Amino acid sequence: MSTQAPGFLRRFLIGPPIHTERAHHERLSPLLGLPVFSSDALSSVAYATEAILSVLVLHSVLAVHYQFPITIGICCLIVLVVISYQQTIRAYPNGGGSYIVASDNLGETPGLLAGAALLIDYVLTVAVSVAAGVLAITSAYSALHPYLLLMCAACVAVIAWANLRGVRESGAAFAVPTYGFIAGMVVMIVAGVFKASQGVHSAPQITVDQTSTVSMTLLFLVARSFSAGCTALTGIEAVSNGVQAFRAPEPKNAIMTLRIMAVMLVFMFVGTGYLSQHLPSITLFATKNPHYETLVSQIAAWTFGRGTFGYLYIQLATAAILILAANTAFADFPRLASLLSRDGYLPRPLSRQGDRLVFHNGIIALSVAALALIWMYHGELDLLLPLYAVGVFTAFTLSQLGMVQHWRKLQGPGWHAKAFLNGLGAIATAIVTAVIMWTKFVEGAWIVLILLTIFYIAFKATKSRYSNMADQLAIGDNPLSPATGVRSLLLVPRVHRGILKALDVARSLDSKCEAVHVTIDDRKLPEIQREWEAHGGNVPLSILPSPYRSLISPVLEYVDEVLTRDSKQMLVVIVAEAVSTKWYQRLLQENLSAQLKSALGQRQNVAVLTVRYFLV
Amino acid sequence: MSTQAPGFLRRFLIGPPIHTERAHHERLSPLLGLPVFSSDALSSVAYATEAILSVLVLHSVLAVHYQFPITIGICCLIVLVVISYQQTIRAYPNGGGSYIVASDNLGETPGLLAGAALLIDYVLTVAVSVAAGVLAITSAYSALHPYLLLMCAACVAVIAWANLRGVRESGAAFAVPTYGFIAGMVVMIVAGVFKASQGVHSAPQITVDQTSTVSMTLLFLVARSFSAGCTALTGIEAVSNGVQAFRAPEPKNAIMTLRIMAVMLVFMFVGTGYLSQHLPSITLFATKNPHYETLVSQIAAWTFGRGTFGYLYIQLATAAILILAANTAFADFPRLASLLSRDGYLPRPLSRQGDRLVFHNGIIALSVAALALIWMYHGELDLLLPLYAVGVFTAFTLSQLGMVQHWRKLQGPGWHAKAFLNGLGAIATAIVTAVIMWTKFVEGAWIVLILLTIFYIAFKATKSRYSNMADQLAIGDNPLSPATGVRSLLLVPRVHRGILKALDVARSLDSKCEAVHVTIDDRKLPEIQREWEAHGGNVPLSILPSPYRSLISPVLEYVDEVLTRDSKQMLVVIVAEAVSTKWYQRLLQENLSAQLKSALGQRQNVAVLTVRYFLV
Repeated sequence: MSTQAPGFLRRFLIGPPIHTERAHHERLSPLLGLPVFSSDALSSVAYATEAILSVLVLHSVLAVHYQFPITIGICCLIVLVVISYQQTIRAYPNGGGSYIVASDNLGETPGLLAGAALLIDYVLTVAVSVAAGVLAITSAYSALHPYLLLMCAACVAVIAWANLRGVRESGAAFAVPTYGFIAGMVVMIVAGVFKASQGVHSAPQITVDQTSTVSMTLLFLVARSFSAGCTALTGIEAVSNGVQAFRAPEPKNAIMTLRIMAVMLVFMFVGTGYLSQHLPSITLFATKNPHYETLVSQIAAWTFGRGTFGYLYIQLATAAILILAANTAFADFPRLASLLSRDGYLPRPLSRQGDRLVFHNGIIALSVAALALIWMYHGELDLLLPLYAVGVFTAFTLSQLGMVQHWRKLQGPGWHAKAFLNGLGAIATAIVTAVIMWTKFVEGAWIVLILLTIFYIAFKATKSRYSNMADQLAIGDNPLSPATGVRSLLLVPRVHRGILKALDVARSLDSKCEAVHVTIDDRKLPEIQREWEAHGGNVPLSILPSPYRSLISPVLEYVDEVLTRDSKQMLVVIVAEAVSTKWYQRLLQENLSAQLKSALGQRQNVAVLTVRYFLV
Repeated sequence: MSTQAPGFLRRFLIGPPIHTERAHHERLSPLLGLPVFSSDALSSVAYATEAILSVLVLHSVLAVHYQFPITIGICCLIVLVVISYQQTIRAYPNGGGSYIVASDNLGETPGLLAGAALLIDYVLTVAVSVAAGVLAITSAYSALHPYLLLMCAACVAVIAWANLRGVRESGAAFAVPTYGFIAGMVVMIVAGVFKASQGVHSAPQITVDQTSTVSMTLLFLVARSFSAGCTALTGIEAVSNGVQAFRAPEPKNAIMTLRIMAVMLVFMFVGTGYLSQHLPSITLFATKNPHYETLVSQIAAWTFGRGTFGYLYIQLATAAILILAANTAFADFPRLASLLSRDGYLPRPLSRQGDRLVFHNGIIALSVAALALIWMYHGELDLLLPLYAVGVFTAFTLSQLGMVQHWRKLQGPGWHAKAFLNGLGAIATAIVTAVIMWTKFVEGAWIVLILLTIFYIAFKATKSRYSNMADQLAIGDNPLSPATGVRSLLLVPRVHRGILKALDVARSLDSKCEAVHVTIDDRKLPEIQREWEAHGGNVPLSILPSPYRSLISPVLEYVDEVLTRDSKQMLVVIVAEAVSTKWYQRLLQENLSAQLKSALGQRQNVAVLTVRYFLV
């Protein structure tokens, strides 16, 4: 009847619907799984080294030498966490995200905390990765610096759109840039190490934007620097949470992906850390300066020479993988939200798969949250980073504690060794979580803490409301007492074809139907009554006076009167609507029936029957 | 069921409903009629003289001496128009606005043009009067100049609010400022004339903001200056259009009001014109200058001395009556819009009287239009004035031409003299209309011309759509063929108490009722079927598969299939809704039933029955 323009547009952008049976065909090989789930972890080399240095330099230029040991320490942590997570994937082949592992083994509260921590971190992943990706571009083309926020928004929109189309297509579309980035970084590191071995090594000259004198101890600054570098570990969780998305055998493919990812990550992180020590001079995090370039851009310029193909390749590949890193969150946030929603902790629409087999509501929610965050922090990476990694380390700790409990309960072969490994992971990540909270508290970790609390309360409140609703709707042993009867009431503002159609329906449903007319102008009354006599059949017409000229109140009063007379009776109010088919013609029609139906909808034991008559 | 907060707020702001029987008690005596209907005309002395001078000075300082003759010419026009309108009021005791007189006697097109012209002019009255009123205040308190737009918006809001409460209360509330203004102006003119007679008269030094050299002929500038002064005549129409608002005998009271108004207007207009010639120096229309003061402010400062009680009294009284002048339009625009609406030329809601006996939709429409105009012209009076008076003189001319035709058709005693008087008025106002169009065309009259055309087309289109709808709805000789039967279809997403309530209604309405369930997850199907067997009585349950996971499409497809089988059959789709009573609890519920009902509402021969079950 109406034109389907929005539907057409939607089809064009999102693609035709996908049959449920095709769900299994949408699954990923390790080759396609790596770009979908690892870009987050891999891309963190684009900012983690710079984050470490920018904290150390606050103490003194000499403190910069701690950078390399810190990098190595973080790499050990990566290996430990990956080993822990391999066990999780084997134990939870259907997907073992922190939420599931923690709630399975530790109970509701730790599970919900892990879920909340991860949801928050996924939003930060999108915001941080997109902001860093755009900085990689403006490093190479400083003329674009004024459009930073606009470019961030465009990136989020494009990633959301790709994900609304479906996960398989994202895997294919994102494989080339991920592998392109890895290849480019490997070439740069090899070439850079070769160049460094030729020259004479001296400590780089470091420039920082913030020139405030900081009176913190070296220990605190090394700890804070370590915390800053821990952003490199975000994204490891993603694979274990998304085991279901892999091709069978799912656990094997997922573990393979996890291992490739870890090797790549450690190689690139150590490589960029080593090269940063060999640059003649460094500028750190001057994101407001229109000529600011990232540390990776400075390394690439030193290695290949500014403006060369190699330099531009590294910049564009870095931008591409960072922007795709946001995609990791787009693969995982909606999946986690749907789990929480299925368990009743989040609103139900988040667990609905759309006709493209994706959780579209989760994708939309994530986009909106990330855009809001980018907008609040003006897309400034150095402001966003302190919020990051609190959530993911909380989730790591809870998940691995859960695994320890899992092995203890299961008591399978070799459970002591497994529990020891996960326990080691749990202790290490618990310490890191504490360090992050301690060193980043003032800068932003407190915000995450408040958000965690809010999420937890909202989860519990949602769950309790859904249980309450289910109780109220349960049929149980106390069956509904049937209505003592059903009466119908036909509203007759004027006598026309639309009313006659409604009258036809009314009479065939209920032999005792009654018609009512609200009169504002008594002079018009005789004509209405004459017309009703001619066309109304044997249905009696009651006249309701309206001294205050309202067409709605007299109907409501009459309805209330009927209901009061017999509180067990159902009243069906029949509303005839004459509807124009074109929207601009509808502007001329009064919206009284919508108001009336809304008021009737507030009443117990009133059902509203809408009968429409179409005008061309 | 839901809280009635918006209703309480509305009651508090607007007041309790007023019974239709009280309509006659709301009528006005001449004493209260003068403030309601004449503030527009009287207040124009606040800017008309300044408008005349600001045009003349463009030619040369000597041309300023034409100001007094022009003022006298405009006064003669006022007397002529008032005499004409007295005849109109007598001939049309039920209200003889230009729209009625022109359409009665000259036909549809002149009537609609007069109506459109007046509607446009009423909006301009609000914009011009409010802008001038705020300028009167900022003249005295230049610190308020930056808040000009905000003050304009606040004024419009307050006037709209007063009018939404009802016309009688506006009469009472606005009497004091109107009479206060008249008294103040009389005192100022008498005192000023006395002071002028004491001193030596020499032409004033004139400063204008615009210093562009103008190469227009003296004739053109005198004509344009005359046009600018004709803004003094706006508002005379108001009384004749609002005869119904007076106490019986309505025509006598209305004519009395018109005469008092004319005497006052001429006295004040001539008085301020005379005094302006005796000031030592004048500044004209520098509305952007934060220290600008209006001509009336300059006269008052010269007469009483700046900062004296007399000066402040004149400024505040001028501001008050100007802001009330907008009220004239608020009394008449909704009344005219309701006449056009009753005749089918404007949307019907404009002719509905609210529970306070006012045409609330017209009041709201006028407020919005005036605010938009003020915002577009930044509240600058000198930019708004050229748009003004085109409409009102078009309406004058059409109305008086209509009166000539009226007397010719009636041929009553002395009709020749009456027709001559109205004919004289028609010729004079036609000439003035032509002069205004000629001299103000480039500055803004062209906009009014385009708006007139748009209004005319919209009136005709609305009328034609309403006639078309009436034809389609007319029962006529071709009665509706009754439906071959009514089937009902109960939607069962799950089996719960809300569904059982709907089932109860369904069964008592239709013995052949059918239930349908859309299945997304086949595993849950046996449970639903078992529950339905237990509680569904003998109503059969059909299962609709949903391979693309939509809950809506399978229902629509099934409905379309049923309709195709028998195109004369009515299908009642029964939708059970479990509704939370608190809005924040509703956030957790899915909005599927609204989407479904909207899609069903697009189909012929489908009626939707909503049965609600309330959750606490």
